[in-house]
Amino acid sequence: MYLQPRSDMYGGEEVPEYDSRLEFISGFTGSAGIAIITIEKALLFVDGRYTLQAQLQLDSNWTVMELSSDSWINWIVENIKTGNKIGYDPWLMKAKDITSLSCKINQKNFFLIPDENNLVDSMWEKRPKIFQNHPKNWNKKYFTLSVENKIDQLKINMKMKGLDALVITQPNQLCWLLNIRGDDLKYTPLFLGFLVLEVNGGISIFSRNNKKLIKNTYKNYLYSALIPFLKKFKNKNIAINLNYCPSIIAERLKLSNNKIIEDFTFLQDISTIKNKIEKQFIRDCHLRDGAAFVKFLYWIDRQIVSKKITEYQASCKLKEFRAKDKNFISESFPSILATGENGAIIHYRPEEQNSKIILKDKLLLIDSGGQYYDGTTDITRTIAFTDQPQEVKDIYTYVLKAHIALARLKFKNKTRGNEIDAIVRSKLWEKGLDYNHGTGHGVGFCLGVHEFPPVISKNISPALKAGQLISNEPGYYLENAFGIRLENLVLVQDSKVSNSQYLEFETVSFCHFENKLINRKLLGMNEINWLNDYHYNVYSNLEVYLNKNEKNWLKQKTVNI
Amino acid sequence: MYLQPRSDMYGGEEVPEYDSRLEFISGFTGSAGIAIITIEKALLFVDGRYTLQAQLQLDSNWTVMELSSDSWINWIVENIKTGNKIGYDPWLMKAKDITSLSCKINQKNFFLIPDENNLVDSMWEKRPKIFQNHPKNWNKKYFTLSVENKIDQLKINMKMKGLDALVITQPNQLCWLLNIRGDDLKYTPLFLGFLVLEVNGGISIFSRNNKKLIKNTYKNYLYSALIPFLKKFKNKNIAINLNYCPSIIAERLKLSNNKIIEDFTFLQDISTIKNKIEKQFIRDCHLRDGAAFVKFLYWIDRQIVSKKITEYQASCKLKEFRAKDKNFISESFPSILATGENGAIIHYRPEEQNSKIILKDKLLLIDSGGQYYDGTTDITRTIAFTDQPQEVKDIYTYVLKAHIALARLKFKNKTRGNEIDAIVRSKLWEKGLDYNHGTGHGVGFCLGVHEFPPVISKNISPALKAGQLISNEPGYYLENAFGIRLENLVLVQDSKVSNSQYLEFETVSFCHFENKLINRKLLGMNEINWLNDYHYNVYSNLEVYLNKNEKNWLKQKTVNI
Repeated sequence: MYLQPRSDMYGGEEVPEYDSRLEFISGFTGSAGIAIITIEKALLFVDGRYTLQAQLQLDSNWTVMELSSDSWINWIVENIKTGNKIGYDPWLMKAKDITSLSCKINQKNFFLIPDENNLVDSMWEKRPKIFQNHPKNWNKKYFTLSVENKIDQLKINMKMKGLDALVITQPNQLCWLLNIRGDDLKYTPLFLGFLVLEVNGGISIFSRNNKKLIKNTYKNYLYSALIPFLKKFKNKNIAINLNYCPSIIAERLKLSNNKIIEDFTFLQDISTIKNKIEKQFIRDCHLRDGAAFVKFLYWIDRQIVSKKITEYQASCKLKEFRAKDKNFISESFPSILATGENGAIIHYRPEEQNSKIILKDKLLLIDSGGQYYDGTTDITRTIAFTDQPQEVKDIYTYVLKAHIALARLKFKNKTRGNEIDAIVRSKLWEKGLDYNHGTGHGVGFCLGVHEFPPVISKNISPALKAGQLISNEPGYYLENAFGIRLENLVLVQDSKVSNSQYLEFETVSFCHFENKLINRKLLGMNEINWLNDYHYNVYSNLEVYLNKNEKNWLKQKTVNI
Repeated sequence: MYLQPRSDMYGGEEVPEYDSRLEFISGFTGSAGIAIITIEKALLFVDGRYTLQAQLQLDSNWTVMELSSDSWINWIVENIKTGNKIGYDPWLMKAKDITSLSCKINQKNFFLIPDENNLVDSMWEKRPKIFQNHPKNWNKKYFTLSVENKIDQLKINMKMKGLDALVITQPNQLCWLLNIRGDDLKYTPLFLGFLVLEVNGGISIFSRNNKKLIKNTYKNYLYSALIPFLKKFKNKNIAINLNYCPSIIAERLKLSNNKIIEDFTFLQDISTIKNKIEKQFIRDCHLRDGAAFVKFLYWIDRQIVSKKITEYQASCKLKEFRAKDKNFISESFPSILATGENGAIIHYRPEEQNSKIILKDKLLLIDSGGQYYDGTTDITRTIAFTDQPQEVKDIYTYVLKAHIALARLKFKNKTRGNEIDAIVRSKLWEKGLDYNHGTGHGVGFCLGVHEFPPVISKNISPALKAGQLISNEPGYYLENAFGIRLENLVLVQDSKVSNSQYLEFETVSFCHFENKLINRKLLGMNEINWLNDYHYNVYSNLEVYLNKNEKNWLKQKTVNI
């Protein structure tokens, strides 16, 4: 059998077209999955978000299987036969997965065969063009900490842990550390590469580009030179994140008896904590992004009266409003514009062909964001053009209560993401409502719109830390009917509620909620006060960006309830 | 060095006087701790609850150290020298701890020396009398499931897991399985013993009593016969809980190449889930216990006007009220009666000598419970005899809000204990308040007043399950001033709030809250409704047990707010 995961060698959420091997062999376009291909069968393991989509996209050669933690490994354990050979590309399979797999089947007679000559590549004739892989030191003023300072901090912490080297396989950490960005991906301004930092030495970069593009002080190699390069490490302590690390790297390090340190999380932590100046950039960026979004909402509110607009057309218009900003780089992910029942498909994304005409009498869900030199945004609103049934208003109001619960929350230091998740959901549980996705994901600074840590979801997760940027996005979805999601980004801040260490959230996204959908009677005084304060701030912060008509419209949308 | 833990070989919270070795050598009476004694030093590791108490109880030979997970192991790792010998009693040290210790120091040159001749015992001259160790089949009507049925279920589940045998080292599980109880402990009706169940064989019991006291169908041995007995297992799959298992047992099983299965939790789960009939017993038992508690509160409310009563005298009177019940066995733990600033000492316990006179103008915290043939109770109230400062009333009200948050909560199946903990605490966090103990502990059925699972605390813990009985006890403590804790027991029940699987809590403890201390303005309508409904039920359920004066008094205490 042969294993083909969705991920590329960097393991990020977004994969360049050049590396979209799983899509090429199966047609599946979701953001997570793994194929197991045997002589008789072709299986695609995808998680709950993607089962429906995979069934639509795959032809009859394929069988869709449920992906949940180790389910694909368990399938292999149950179906492997003596003498079977399991082939995989060791640049694509992650070290953690290969270790789990080999542990679980170690009592059987089988062969795990890493092969750098990827089987898919060998038959991919019209493969998309390779990405540029040109790192860029763009907009220096937005890099508020020098590379030297970052590397010094890192080395101090490496020394405290007795580390000899750190192998960075996650491009977002490489870009953060070196104050560079790139355009290797469509929605994330990343330069894709690996980095090795030696505590008593320099920095070596491994990518598809070995020209000295970054800085003369770094050594630049082709990525294939990484494995020979690692041979010099013997009996060393080397930090690496096995969840993201290609198995070929970990295997090479183990061969020379190096000790792999998994719990060095300093870089991961510090690279996700925004400093004071970055926070200012983020606030300003979100005001401009909020204004573009409000302009779009005003535009569609007017257009819908007389014109037929498709979801796709509207998404282009939304991008147009954002693109007027001088700092705009790209959208931060493909916009979700979903009318009526499409709103219930959590990862719906309108295509140029066949996208639906926006229905005036149904809810419209809009989830979108931008990449700017001074920040990354992500915002969701659910709006109505006409009066809606009481049940829909009530559910919208419960989702809003959940959103406000997080926005108002003060919490003890060390509170975990899953604990905050439960606090937010409990507002919906009260009426037997829930949603099948997380409450919040971390967001980078001109980096990935999904960044870990932090995370707020049902899965056990680390405590939140001051300086992180995270989404607040409870929702509710009724299949074949409608979807509601309300999302702002919030900064984790120290709280003054007590002398002990407490944290709270500062909402940085600004856009009104839909007053047509709010049932005031379901809100407590604290919630009403929060909403009125927020709406006051939406108007007073955004009016400077708006024309007269837009201002008048927003004024009405933000009156006290 | 020598290791002396507080626990006996059964690892339960309560230890017979006969086995209170740590108290004998140090004077420390807390419920958790471990001593490390070297040629030069005597260290006692205790957790945050007990640091103050240990400092008061220990003399100058001792140093108090902080106990947090592996802190004592880390101390050894840092202080051990080549050639050092570490002695311990392998009946007292748990397998998990000895494994952790030996893993962490395996690169050094040291010797771990298990020695069944306990060093403390060898010098303990006036050792207390040994406990009876007579199992009792008392009150058969309260054992609602036959032993045969329980063993059948257990064997079916053992077979599904491919187990050959199960070694039970926790007496509460042994007593549950065999429908017996005992009087080996003061506050928990346990018979102390080990049990081995063979999937294709019988039941063997190991205790200090090898007479055929339980049943002819079981084999009864002295506990020292257990190790020779285990020799017959070779290459078998044996389930055991290494957190509670004496290391001598695990080591013996490993010697003969048996595979130790740690994740067989069926017995632990089922023994903590109360069935329909047990729930009825629990409800009834709590009504009688609640009535005894209300009678006590009425009594003290009258007495305090003119008499001087010490905390200890009041605790005796409270026991008297409970002991009138025909099903009463004992208190379920030493009562906490704490006036004024004593209330801030979470594990305060009034002694016959030197306990304080209850102050009329201060808060009084009462935490107590009973063991009955038909259930185990645990209830806490904080009361006031006079008007209190606004700040105290407000804090009481916030604690009440947290209590009501749990009592009213509906939550999705699979929600973990620590997630519910955060929901409850968030009511206090809003004002920067918190408490340094868990929100809830499991409670047995005529078994331990602390039973695991379930637990609701900041530590990551398993999901709650329908049928569990657990406490709801948020609090707030201001050192040198006062303590507030409000505790009821609640049953975890299936909820009808949705068609999906939701759970909720049914409060089974009945006693009014202190209306002198409630600030109505801080409560929302849902909270006020819950409180008024609860008070209505307190009165209507308890009046039948009360005399005329008590009834009139309770009527006033439970009027609608």
